[in-house]
Amino acid sequence: MDVYEALYTTRAMRRVRPDPISEEVQRKILDAAIRAPSGGNSQTWRFLLLDDKAVLAQLGPIYRRCLEQVWNLVYKDRIAAAAAAPDDPEHAQMLRVQRSAQHLADHFEDYPLMLFSFAQGDPTGGSIHPSTWSAMLAARAEGVGSAWTVAFVFELAAVLGILGVPPEENWQFGSCVTFGYPTGRWGVAPRIPVHEVSYRNHWGTPVGFEIPTPLWSY
Amino acid sequence: MDVYEALYTTRAMRRVRPDPISEEVQRKILDAAIRAPSGGNSQTWRFLLLDDKAVLAQLGPIYRRCLEQVWNLVYKDRIAAAAAAPDDPEHAQMLRVQRSAQHLADHFEDYPLMLFSFAQGDPTGGSIHPSTWSAMLAARAEGVGSAWTVAFVFELAAVLGILGVPPEENWQFGSCVTFGYPTGRWGVAPRIPVHEVSYRNHWGTPVGFEIPTPLWSY
Repeated sequence: MDVYEALYTTRAMRRVRPDPISEEVQRKILDAAIRAPSGGNSQTWRFLLLDDKAVLAQLGPIYRRCLEQVWNLVYKDRIAAAAAAPDDPEHAQMLRVQRSAQHLADHFEDYPLMLFSFAQGDPTGGSIHPSTWSAMLAARAEGVGSAWTVAFVFELAAVLGILGVPPEENWQFGSCVTFGYPTGRWGVAPRIPVHEVSYRNHWGTPVGFEIPTPLWSY
Repeated sequence: MDVYEALYTTRAMRRVRPDPISEEVQRKILDAAIRAPSGGNSQTWRFLLLDDKAVLAQLGPIYRRCLEQVWNLVYKDRIAAAAAAPDDPEHAQMLRVQRSAQHLADHFEDYPLMLFSFAQGDPTGGSIHPSTWSAMLAARAEGVGSAWTVAFVFELAAVLGILGVPPEENWQFGSCVTFGYPTGRWGVAPRIPVHEVSYRNHWGTPVGFEIPTPLWSY
């Protein structure tokens, strides 16, 4: 697959089939992940694949409680505004994201594979995320959809306990990514165009060009 | 370019030529960046391209001071250990990374293009990084090397002031990425193999397979 197709069409795919992800595809996902950069190339990271239904059953109720926290603490105002005027395009988009995220929570135990990532000794905490995004791009190349979530931060101690992460080693939770073959179609997600979110040399100075439609599309 | 070639060969490229990066390539870099996911698809991000030599001249001395802080505060023990036994392979790797990072600092003003990223209202601070990594992968597809640095965090207020980031809007600095056509060759960076950094279902449980050599190579 061309790199641009992967970059443009790897969007959150939360509605997936329960079919397993083969070991061959799992290898491609993880081997791509570890090629990503890390601060000082330290590679102080761990990747935990999860496909044990018993563990998923333990984590599912926790995840649903965490997502409730996300709605109540992070998105409360946006959800209230969206509910008050659901026909506004921006609000409709918010409600779509909410329904999709809630679907993930409601079907947590049904995903065939998840990837938890952890980093150690990273002052900014950001160094783990390129590897996760690489894993998702490699999955896309194999026809596997993914979705990225950090909602577990609201009950992190319980999650780390279930996964057996040694508390004395100070591993930071990076994210949880769900995988699965999507039931829907791949596509280029709509985005705020480049010229509305980009500057050149100084905040507020136009970047110097406009890109009204995606440079890559089907 | 195949997505795996991009994922496997986008390694830090800090030794670059001063040749400019065309607007066409800049468009591809930024348009790929904004396709990345963000928390709740909020896209509360800003991308600032920097190619003004006057601004680079202001930032260069700050960056060199920041990198000194990185060496003194973050890597002090590793550098001391490496200096004491430079022939140890792990130490040699550390010293190579240090020389390469120092090269970036010493030649800060010579890079033809940089990308600063910022996020707003992101509780975990990680949501901006997939977009940055997408920008670097798109650059790779165009033959442009890149290197990711967060060293500016040590003098962030000065940097945000020079770039004109409005303090009252609480933008979080994501990273600074340098771009340039590399003087060296592309290649697959050596990494700790998957089975040494991965588990399945529980911390410490083997992932179930070994990948002794990269699944993609030239």
